[in-house]
Amino acid sequence: FSIDFNVSSGALSTSSGVTSVGAFVWISVAAPAGSVSFSVKHTAGVQVEVVTDDQLQVAPANGGKQWPLDHGTILKLSMNKASTEANDNKVTVNYYGEDGGPPIDQAGVFLTGIGISLDVDADRDGVVEKNNPRKVTLPLVPSHQRSPECCHVGRRTKDASIDLLRVRGEGSLTKLHSWRECATGKSHFSKHSFPPTPFFLLDPFFGQRYIHVLGRRKLYHVVKYTGGSAELEFFVEGLRFPDDTFSGLVSINISLLESLTEGIPRAPIFTDTVVFRVAPWIMTPNTLAPVNVFVCSVKDNYLFLKEVKSIVSKANCDLKVCFGYVNRGDRWMQDEIEFGYIHAPHKCFPVVLDSPRDGGLKDFPIKEILGPDFGYVAREPLFEVVTSLDSFGNLEVSPPVTVNGKAYPLGRILIGSSFPTSAGRRMTKVVRDFLYAQQVQSPVELYSDWLTVGHVDEFVTFVPHPDKKQFRMLMASTSACYKLFREKQKEGHGEATMFKGYSGTDTKRVTINKVLSNEVMMQENQYVQRCIDWNRDILKKELGLTEKDIIDLPALFKIDKMGKAMAYFPNMVNMIVLSRDLGIPKPFGPIIEGDCCLEAHVRSLLEPLGLMCSFIDDISSYHKKLGEVHCGTNVHRKPFSFKWWHVIP
Amino acid sequence: FSIDFNVSSGALSTSSGVTSVGAFVWISVAAPAGSVSFSVKHTAGVQVEVVTDDQLQVAPANGGKQWPLDHGTILKLSMNKASTEANDNKVTVNYYGEDGGPPIDQAGVFLTGIGISLDVDADRDGVVEKNNPRKVTLPLVPSHQRSPECCHVGRRTKDASIDLLRVRGEGSLTKLHSWRECATGKSHFSKHSFPPTPFFLLDPFFGQRYIHVLGRRKLYHVVKYTGGSAELEFFVEGLRFPDDTFSGLVSINISLLESLTEGIPRAPIFTDTVVFRVAPWIMTPNTLAPVNVFVCSVKDNYLFLKEVKSIVSKANCDLKVCFGYVNRGDRWMQDEIEFGYIHAPHKCFPVVLDSPRDGGLKDFPIKEILGPDFGYVAREPLFEVVTSLDSFGNLEVSPPVTVNGKAYPLGRILIGSSFPTSAGRRMTKVVRDFLYAQQVQSPVELYSDWLTVGHVDEFVTFVPHPDKKQFRMLMASTSACYKLFREKQKEGHGEATMFKGYSGTDTKRVTINKVLSNEVMMQENQYVQRCIDWNRDILKKELGLTEKDIIDLPALFKIDKMGKAMAYFPNMVNMIVLSRDLGIPKPFGPIIEGDCCLEAHVRSLLEPLGLMCSFIDDISSYHKKLGEVHCGTNVHRKPFSFKWWHVIP
Repeated sequence: FSIDFNVSSGALSTSSGVTSVGAFVWISVAAPAGSVSFSVKHTAGVQVEVVTDDQLQVAPANGGKQWPLDHGTILKLSMNKASTEANDNKVTVNYYGEDGGPPIDQAGVFLTGIGISLDVDADRDGVVEKNNPRKVTLPLVPSHQRSPECCHVGRRTKDASIDLLRVRGEGSLTKLHSWRECATGKSHFSKHSFPPTPFFLLDPFFGQRYIHVLGRRKLYHVVKYTGGSAELEFFVEGLRFPDDTFSGLVSINISLLESLTEGIPRAPIFTDTVVFRVAPWIMTPNTLAPVNVFVCSVKDNYLFLKEVKSIVSKANCDLKVCFGYVNRGDRWMQDEIEFGYIHAPHKCFPVVLDSPRDGGLKDFPIKEILGPDFGYVAREPLFEVVTSLDSFGNLEVSPPVTVNGKAYPLGRILIGSSFPTSAGRRMTKVVRDFLYAQQVQSPVELYSDWLTVGHVDEFVTFVPHPDKKQFRMLMASTSACYKLFREKQKEGHGEATMFKGYSGTDTKRVTINKVLSNEVMMQENQYVQRCIDWNRDILKKELGLTEKDIIDLPALFKIDKMGKAMAYFPNMVNMIVLSRDLGIPKPFGPIIEGDCCLEAHVRSLLEPLGLMCSFIDDISSYHKKLGEVHCGTNVHRKPFSFKWWHVIP
Repeated sequence: FSIDFNVSSGALSTSSGVTSVGAFVWISVAAPAGSVSFSVKHTAGVQVEVVTDDQLQVAPANGGKQWPLDHGTILKLSMNKASTEANDNKVTVNYYGEDGGPPIDQAGVFLTGIGISLDVDADRDGVVEKNNPRKVTLPLVPSHQRSPECCHVGRRTKDASIDLLRVRGEGSLTKLHSWRECATGKSHFSKHSFPPTPFFLLDPFFGQRYIHVLGRRKLYHVVKYTGGSAELEFFVEGLRFPDDTFSGLVSINISLLESLTEGIPRAPIFTDTVVFRVAPWIMTPNTLAPVNVFVCSVKDNYLFLKEVKSIVSKANCDLKVCFGYVNRGDRWMQDEIEFGYIHAPHKCFPVVLDSPRDGGLKDFPIKEILGPDFGYVAREPLFEVVTSLDSFGNLEVSPPVTVNGKAYPLGRILIGSSFPTSAGRRMTKVVRDFLYAQQVQSPVELYSDWLTVGHVDEFVTFVPHPDKKQFRMLMASTSACYKLFREKQKEGHGEATMFKGYSGTDTKRVTINKVLSNEVMMQENQYVQRCIDWNRDILKKELGLTEKDIIDLPALFKIDKMGKAMAYFPNMVNMIVLSRDLGIPKPFGPIIEGDCCLEAHVRSLLEPLGLMCSFIDDISSYHKKLGEVHCGTNVHRKPFSFKWWHVIP
C-alpha cells in the first residue's frame, strides 16, 4: 500500500491514507524546483526511515536531521499501534535550497493506522497470542471422523451427537481468530477461504450461538465495520482427515478492505493468513503402554479368555470383552479395527480406524467404541474386492526409529503387500492412500502375500527393551527352528514329541526326528525363510536396524494348495505385547525333560531383556482357524508424548 | 537372504545358496560341543567379515586367524562378482577345542553369486552406467502430451503420427535397464510396476521391435532365465504430465526369484529399484531469448503487424503469422496458448499448453504448432464455466528469483485470481492443479479480478537487466501517472493534449488539466492503485524483491459498469519483450514540445537499463478491444540452461 506523495510547490498540500499496523508504506521523495535537501518531521505513532541506495536511516521525529535530495530517495513509513481517531498521525517533509536557509517548500501526509490481525495459538500452548508474527502451521483436530464412503453410518452418528458436538465445541474447537479495529469508519472486513476447503467450518461466536460463516460452498464472509474497537472470536473445526485428495492444509485469510467512494469496489489494504493442518491419525506401537485390551467371547474360547484376562490384569490395564450378540461369531478382533489417536495442543483423543473387512464384528466399532471421547474413521473401496490383506492384522507400526540420520519419532507404519512377486493381493488403495496421507508415520510396504492369511503380524512384531534402541524386533524364523531341532536331535532328543496335551484331530505322533527327516517340509520352510528374509532386508533398511536389533523366534510353516504358507504349530511371533508382559501362542513344541523346548528357547531369548513370557493355549480356538493370540486381540494404547507437529517431513 | 549354517558334529556338512552380487548374507556361527574358537577359510570371490558386538573384522581367505566363539557371533558374507558356474565359491569354518590342536569340527557353505542390477543413466550424461549405486530420481520426457479432457483431439493426433512416434522412439525413449545374469539355471526374473502406473509403458527392444511389457494394467512381467550371461535393454516412456492425481514419480522394480522345488512358489532373493520423474512442463520468462514470435493477421491490424515485424527483425528472431483461415478473426494470440518446454538429459523440446479458452484460435495449437518436435498438452474443465481469467494473458512467469535464501532457479508462475475479495472469477481448477503439479516453478496467485479482462499482464511484466538480479519488474502505476501529469502541469503544460493523431470515435480534446481536475477519475485510479499495490506487496514478498527492483510505468484506468477496471490509454506494461527490444503499446499521451511525455518518461526509465523502446500503435486494433501488444502476440523462447532436476523442492 503506497500513498502518492503529493508535492505541490509553494503550498502545503496534504493527502491521507489508511495503513495497517505493522505493514510498511513506501513514499518516494520528489524534489521541488531549487531544493537540494530535505528533513522529515512526524508524530509519535509513525516510524520513518530514509532509504538511499539500500541504506536505511531512522528519521528523528523532530525533523532535526537533513538529507541530500537524491533521485530515488524513498521514505519507509510504518505504524506500531492503531490510531484512536482518523488521520491522527502525520508526516511532514521540509525542502531546503542551496543557501541552507528556512524551508522553501513543504509536503505532508496524514496517516490512520488500523490494527488488524488473525491471531492464533502459534506457540501451541493453548492460549491465543496477540499478533504473534510466527504464523506457523497449526494442528487442527478433525471432529467425529466419517469417510464419504460410509455416510449412512456417519450421518446417524452426527445426528445423534449434534447437541453434544456443539456443547463440546468450546473444548474441541480451536479458537482461531480475533481482530481489533480502530478509527476510520470506512473499513470493511472480509474473510476468504482460499483455496476452497469444502470440509471446513468457521463459526464466529456471538453470545452463546455459533454461526456458520465459512466452509463447504461459503468461500468468503464479510463483516462490516461500524466504528470503534472490536474483537471477534472465530472457531475452526476440521471435518475430514488428510487423504489422497486433501493434504490436510487449510488456509484462512483475512483482508482489510476500504470503501473509497460510492460506485467503486472496495480496495484491499492488508491481508493476513493462518494455515492449519488437520491432525493426522496416529498409530500406536507395542512399546506404548496399554490402556484397554479388546477380545471377543465366542462359543469355544472360554479358556483362552481366562488366560488373556490373567495377563491383562498382570499388565495393569483393562479387559474389554465383546460378546456374541455384537461379534456374531467373529473372533478376529485384531482384523476389524486399528486403534490410533489424534492430537492438538488443546485436545488429544483416541480414534478407531474401521477396516473394510466387515465380518461379524462389522458394527462393533460404531456401536461399542465410537463415543463422545472416541473418534471413528473408516475407508472402504467403492469397487475393489476386499481381500484378507485388508484386515488390520496386516497393518502394524514400528516403534520410533532413526534411519541414516532421518528420525521417525512416531515410528513407521507397516503394510503387507504382494511385492516383489507378481500382481497378487494387496491392501486396498483407499486405506493405503489414507495411511500415506497422514505423513507422520511414513508407511513401509512389506511382502505378506506369500502367506495364506497374508498378514504382517504372522512374521514380525516388536517388544519394548530399556536400552538406547528402546525395542527389539522379533521375526518368525524357520531356520531358527531347524537349528534348534537339530541341536536337540544331536543332544539325543530326536524322539521328543510335539503337540502333546493337545487333543485335536491330528493324532499322529510328531517327533523332532520326523520333522527333520521330512524333505518336503524342509524345502517348504526354506522357501518361507526366503520370503521372511526378503522382508527382513526391507525392515533392516527402512527401520535402520542391525542384526543385533532382531530376535528370531522359531517357527515352521506348511504350504497350502494355493502355494501359500500357514503356521505348522502356533506361531509365537503373533503375540500380544502389554508393556513387559507378553502373551505368546503356546507352541506345543517337543517336550524334553518335561519342558517344551520351544518355550524354553523363547524364554531364554526374551527373559534376559526383562520381558515376562506367558504362553497362551490358542490352538483349537484360534490356531486351527489360521490365527493366533495377536489376531484374536486388540490393544488400545496410550498416545506418544512426542507431538506430531514436531515431525520433520 | 540368509542361509541356515548347518553344523553337524564330526563330518563336513555343506549347504548351498544363491546370493546377489553386492548384497550381504548373514550367518550365525553355532558352536559344536567342546569348541572354543573358530577360523574361516573362503574362496577369492567371497568377502567374509566376523561381527562381534558390532565390531567388524575382515577374515583372511587362508583361514589364518582364529576368533573366540561367542554367543551371537555372526559372519557377514558378500560377493563382488558373479559366479561363472554354480557353487563355485565356498566358505569353510573350522572349530578348535581348548587344547589349540587341529580342528575338532568343520562346516561349510557353497555360494553362487548372481549379478543383477537395474542400470540407468543416474548421472544424466546420456550414457547408462553399469550398476551405479546412485539410483536417483531420473527425468522422463512425457511424449505427445494429451489430456484426458481432450481425447477426441489427442486420438486423432496420435493416429496421425503413430509411425512417427515409433520411429522417434529411439531418440525420445529413455534407455532404462540392463541386467547381467550368470550361473545357476534355476533363476527367474521379474519386473513389477509398483505402485501401478497406468500411464506408463516399458518396452524391451528385441531386434527392431518394441514389445509392450509393463504399463496400464500390466503390472509385472516375468523373464525366464535359461542359462548363460545376458543383457536386456528396456525403454521407458512417459505418457502423462504430473498432475493433481499423479505426482510424476514412477518406480520400476526388478526382483530375482529362485525356483526351489516343483510345487513351491518362487522365492525372492534380491530387488533393485529405479525411480523416474516425468519431466515437468516449464514456462519461459521474458528474460530468455526469443525464438519465434506469433501474431494473428486480422482484417484491421496491417499496420500493427508491420510494426511487430520490424521489432522482431531487430531482435533477431522469427515472426510466425497466423492467418485468418486459422484464427477465424481471433486476434488474441497471447490468450489461446502458453509456450513451455520439457527437458531430459537426452532430449529437450518445446511443448505448448492449450488454454481452455477456445476462441477462434481453438484449432491453432494443434493444427499449426503440434508436430514431431513440438509437444502439446491441454487441460479443460469438465463442468466449470470458462472465464476470461482462463486466458493465458493471465498466466505469466517471473525470471529466476531467490526469496529469503530459497532459490527458484526457473522463476515462479504468476496466476491472476479473485483473492483477496469475495468469490469472483478465478482460473479454472484443472489448469491451476496442472501448474502446481509441475512443482519446479511454484505458482503465486495474484489479484487480477479487479480488471474487466482480469489478466496479470495488464499490470505486471519483467524486462532483462544485466545486473546481479538479472531483471526489473515493471508495474502499471496510476500514481506514477498522476505524479508525472502534476509535474507537467506545474511546468506549465496543463493544456498538453492526449490521443493526438488517433482518429478514433473519441473526438473530445483531453488535456492534462482535464485529467487532473476529474475527481471521479482520480478516485477510480486511487482504487486501482490500491489493487495494484496489493499485488505489489505479494510480488515483493513472494519474489523477494525490493523497491529498487520495481519500475512504475504510468497508467490510467477507468471503471466499467460492473466495477471492473480497463485501461484509459494504451497500457504500456502490456508490452512484448524480445531480449533488449521492447514493443510497447503507444500511449498517445500529452504532447509536449512535439514529444509524447509518457513515451519520454518511459524511455528515461528503461533506456538507462540498456533497453530499446519501440512504441507500437495498437489503439484501434487492440486497445479499443480491451487488449494491447502483449495480448496480441506470443513468444516461443529458448529453454533455461538450468536443469529442472537440480531444483530443490
